[in-house]
Amino acid sequence: MVIRVVKSNGELEDFRPEKILRTLRRAGADKRTAREIVRKIEKKVYDGIATREILRLVKEMLSEEQPHVAMRYDLKSAIMRLGPAGFTFENFVAELLKCYGYQTRLRSVVRGRCVQHEVDVIAEKSDGDFVRAMIECKFHNLPGGAVGLKDVLYTYARFLDLNEFAEEGKGERFDEVWLVSNTKASAEATRYAECRGMKLICWRYPPKLGLEKMIERKGTYPVTILRSVDRGTLEKLSAAGIVLVKQLLECDLSRIGISKARLKKLISEAEQLVTEERSNRQGEH
Amino acid sequence: MVIRVVKSNGELEDFRPEKILRTLRRAGADKRTAREIVRKIEKKVYDGIATREILRLVKEMLSEEQPHVAMRYDLKSAIMRLGPAGFTFENFVAELLKCYGYQTRLRSVVRGRCVQHEVDVIAEKSDGDFVRAMIECKFHNLPGGAVGLKDVLYTYARFLDLNEFAEEGKGERFDEVWLVSNTKASAEATRYAECRGMKLICWRYPPKLGLEKMIERKGTYPVTILRSVDRGTLEKLSAAGIVLVKQLLECDLSRIGISKARLKKLISEAEQLVTEERSNRQGEH
Repeated sequence: MVIRVVKSNGELEDFRPEKILRTLRRAGADKRTAREIVRKIEKKVYDGIATREILRLVKEMLSEEQPHVAMRYDLKSAIMRLGPAGFTFENFVAELLKCYGYQTRLRSVVRGRCVQHEVDVIAEKSDGDFVRAMIECKFHNLPGGAVGLKDVLYTYARFLDLNEFAEEGKGERFDEVWLVSNTKASAEATRYAECRGMKLICWRYPPKLGLEKMIERKGTYPVTILRSVDRGTLEKLSAAGIVLVKQLLECDLSRIGISKARLKKLISEAEQLVTEERSNRQGEH
Repeated sequence: MVIRVVKSNGELEDFRPEKILRTLRRAGADKRTAREIVRKIEKKVYDGIATREILRLVKEMLSEEQPHVAMRYDLKSAIMRLGPAGFTFENFVAELLKCYGYQTRLRSVVRGRCVQHEVDVIAEKSDGDFVRAMIECKFHNLPGGAVGLKDVLYTYARFLDLNEFAEEGKGERFDEVWLVSNTKASAEATRYAECRGMKLICWRYPPKLGLEKMIERKGTYPVTILRSVDRGTLEKLSAAGIVLVKQLLECDLSRIGISKARLKKLISEAEQLVTEERSNRQGEH
């Protein structure tokens, strides 16, 4: 019997157990656990099952076996939970880039030749040559959303408008233009970005260092990956400028209006994730 | 007592009877009728009334007095009824431009330097200097929508991409870039378009020849302005390439699947509108 799964965009594709195995291993599950889960899933799937239903089943099983791997497995949904608005995602991108040595400014109003623009993130780096990047963040709060051609077109036009003003000697010049998104980009958007030298950082794109790999490499997980972060907690953390799990362990959390009991739970979850993270990465070397 | 009206975007503004008078007169109502209607409306409004409720009342009263003026008064809603998708609006824009002496091509796929683009309308004119315009149509099917900065930015980037390819001697060069919409444009979008020499044709913008004036000047009303055009009729007309009231009187309608009774009604309404239109315009001279 053929088993097909329904993807979030409504498309059908054949069920491929090796895909689950790969994702599980990438999230850090050990071989034995990963194989065991795939075996269990194979018994439960049926023709027409939704990918999100498979995701739910896998997470459930993984939580029992390796709870902290389960959190990481959930990275894509965790980032979506930074919504519904794009505000917190912009903060997240800025914090992520800090871990890569950039200095960042959020939501700056910058004058261009024709109009003023709000630039989501300005990132600057000065080891070696100085680089200033104009970064547009494109957040989608539903799976299946994608960066389209219009998004890269308007971002590029904004970059031109800003730099034309700078060339008149009146403003900051941007050396690079980036578009960062939590979803995929269409083939056309990718081609346009490549052709214009625009840096596109999306989900699993570029394959070698997409958003998910940038996060995993530095362990800069969003707070929404922790199970005890609900809507209200996220709002309080976000208002206090905390979007990364790492920050939970570095910042003074006593005055942000979260109860002691919940704080304790939060910090314990954060510590477990960071510890496991560290030993995992040492294991890789 | 202060009476405020709720606009379609949710904003409040003071009720101004002279605004209704002006719109009525612009639609062609005679002075006596217009004043009479305003008097009746003043008795019916209450604090917090929606503008669309006022519109409904005015149309009702106007239909009794001057039925064909009532149709024109309804122009904005008639254009929205070309939706929900933007397809028929593109056809409408192309037909409108033909009345201004342009030759038009719809939804052409044109190669740019980086990617291929679908251009909604290509319009060419050759009386005097030859002009080729790339036209992006932005249709909103709800009142309150507006052309924003991102729309003019991506349209301009598309124009650049197409012309950079043309400069390599490989494609058609566009002399002008236009954006046509059935709603208003934001102040930023307007400023950017002006600065880039982009032609912006929106609702009441530019003030001297916005979309509504372009339509009124040539009497190129959309078929949706006729009361007997419902959803199903519109689909059949649209499939047959008919979007203007004028076309109803010029084309062979016998084979497009509309019943004889309805056709008769349609044509009678169209004839009344066109006749009144003509005498109105003669009256203006």
